[in-house]
Amino acid sequence: MKEETLRDIGEFECIHRIAHDLIYRPELVKLGTGDDGAVFMTPCGYDEVISTDTMVEGIHFTKRTMSAADTGYHLCAVNFSDMAAMGAEPVSFVISAALPGDLSITWIESCYDGIRECCREYSVNLLGGDITGSKQGVILTGTIVGIVPENQAVKRSGAKEGDIVFVTGTLGDSSAGLSILLDGKKEEYPMLAIRHQRPKPQIDFGRILRESGASSLNDVSDGLSREINEIALASRVTIELEKERIPLSDELCRWGQDCGKEPFHFAINGGEDYELVGTISKKNWEYVKGIGGVTGIGHVTKAGKGQVFLKDKNSIKLLTIAGYDHFRL
Amino acid sequence: MKEETLRDIGEFECIHRIAHDLIYRPELVKLGTGDDGAVFMTPCGYDEVISTDTMVEGIHFTKRTMSAADTGYHLCAVNFSDMAAMGAEPVSFVISAALPGDLSITWIESCYDGIRECCREYSVNLLGGDITGSKQGVILTGTIVGIVPENQAVKRSGAKEGDIVFVTGTLGDSSAGLSILLDGKKEEYPMLAIRHQRPKPQIDFGRILRESGASSLNDVSDGLSREINEIALASRVTIELEKERIPLSDELCRWGQDCGKEPFHFAINGGEDYELVGTISKKNWEYVKGIGGVTGIGHVTKAGKGQVFLKDKNSIKLLTIAGYDHFRL
Repeated sequence: MKEETLRDIGEFECIHRIAHDLIYRPELVKLGTGDDGAVFMTPCGYDEVISTDTMVEGIHFTKRTMSAADTGYHLCAVNFSDMAAMGAEPVSFVISAALPGDLSITWIESCYDGIRECCREYSVNLLGGDITGSKQGVILTGTIVGIVPENQAVKRSGAKEGDIVFVTGTLGDSSAGLSILLDGKKEEYPMLAIRHQRPKPQIDFGRILRESGASSLNDVSDGLSREINEIALASRVTIELEKERIPLSDELCRWGQDCGKEPFHFAINGGEDYELVGTISKKNWEYVKGIGGVTGIGHVTKAGKGQVFLKDKNSIKLLTIAGYDHFRL
Repeated sequence: MKEETLRDIGEFECIHRIAHDLIYRPELVKLGTGDDGAVFMTPCGYDEVISTDTMVEGIHFTKRTMSAADTGYHLCAVNFSDMAAMGAEPVSFVISAALPGDLSITWIESCYDGIRECCREYSVNLLGGDITGSKQGVILTGTIVGIVPENQAVKRSGAKEGDIVFVTGTLGDSSAGLSILLDGKKEEYPMLAIRHQRPKPQIDFGRILRESGASSLNDVSDGLSREINEIALASRVTIELEKERIPLSDELCRWGQDCGKEPFHFAINGGEDYELVGTISKKNWEYVKGIGGVTGIGHVTKAGKGQVFLKDKNSIKLLTIAGYDHFRL
């Protein structure tokens, strides 16, 4: 039987099929979807944080490496992660979907199931969206609004001489996960696959690090080399990382041996881990290092022009940005 | 000389070129673009309204009928218009742009000039965005957050028996404008062209109508027939419109004669006018009708299932939705 497509049911029936179970923090919503705009509140004593992120089929995901539900979950996670990186909690989310007419209804319904799953997990309200046609492939844009206690958002620019540089979790798993998915080795490396398909925004760590006095914070969306350079540049400091302290997962090390690539390559240049990287004073680090899941990987050596050095045993070299450019493939 | 493209300068130089002059209401911003998220405030005593709208090249616009600056201006206007339709003022705007690598830098710079022009005109802060590649054509998504005094957002669902139905401005000009642009007759019908290329979000009217006690409000994005049916359905009332009272511009009437189409066709079925349509009690209408630019076009006859009738001299017929479906072209 031919699969039902968007063209078969039309725009308004499509909206009807996906617009259910959208509110996971009802006390902050006055009017949900279905009008020209949704109405919500921000509690007194909070600032708001806003950010937007787009996923383009064929660039950020393919149907080969991500299921529809993974894609929806991923869209939420990458947006919510920007809130974690400011020490904020995500609250209100809207989605714009540009979809080709021959897309199956099953795909878009599953995609919204993935969206709902992530929104439920992090108590985020889905406050509407826009559905339009697309000339080629699926394009999903999420915009997230979060809240953070007044004047406490954690910027990139606050790193100070003597601060410890830390990361949460392990790095490189997501980009390694993409390569194992493309190699068809999901069963052998299930954790790497899941880290690529369903990254976890580090909302709790963002809050804890803010409360613990982190002086700067970024999420690792574009690879450690870019993120740490952004912090060094915004804070006008020089940073030194110790390569052997960068936390790697066992599966990543095993995959490195299997594919003949240095695991650090994934950790330093691979993106989409959505872990947090940042800086904190030595005094505050004493508390943070005890909570588990956060690793010190270097320190801020001095005020400077924004350079990052990578120390590897007895050698030390400049760590330049090796990230992804959307227009230079 | 070959025009410089996005591929020539790369993603990060592109962001550098467009990210200037973004703040037009500084008292509500704590941190602008350049970090993982921007930080802003909402004044006490206000609710917030959020909405998102996408423009896809080849569907919502073409380079033949809109300049780059028009496209940017239009993106803002359609988003801000959703705020007007809630009686809110737009405050914080973010943009996600999916762009093909062969797009000229001049185009994207001009597009952002148009965005800046509209943001300046309506005192809206540009709080960041996302730039990614696109496999085909330009896709722009805006998300707007606005403010409205607590519990005063104007919904679609408040129309009551006996209310007057009103519209602001004139209807049909934008879709007629598109047809004259495609016909190459911009010089003969300059007002129609500008109504299509640079629609005006009716922010002031939205505020005045809210303050005057409008019981329902919609912006005319998808054609009067759809918008008024949405109000009737959400409010569970029956509405009767008088065809000859629907306000038409002189240029639209002239173009109707020229192209052999009834001008009411554009007014009733054509979208993108971004005027406001709504309902208000007879008592409150006495004040509103004196302010100019608002026309009574019918009334709410009774509670009902959400039907709209169009009265034309001695005949009366059901006005069904004749709008645009993105998947049924």
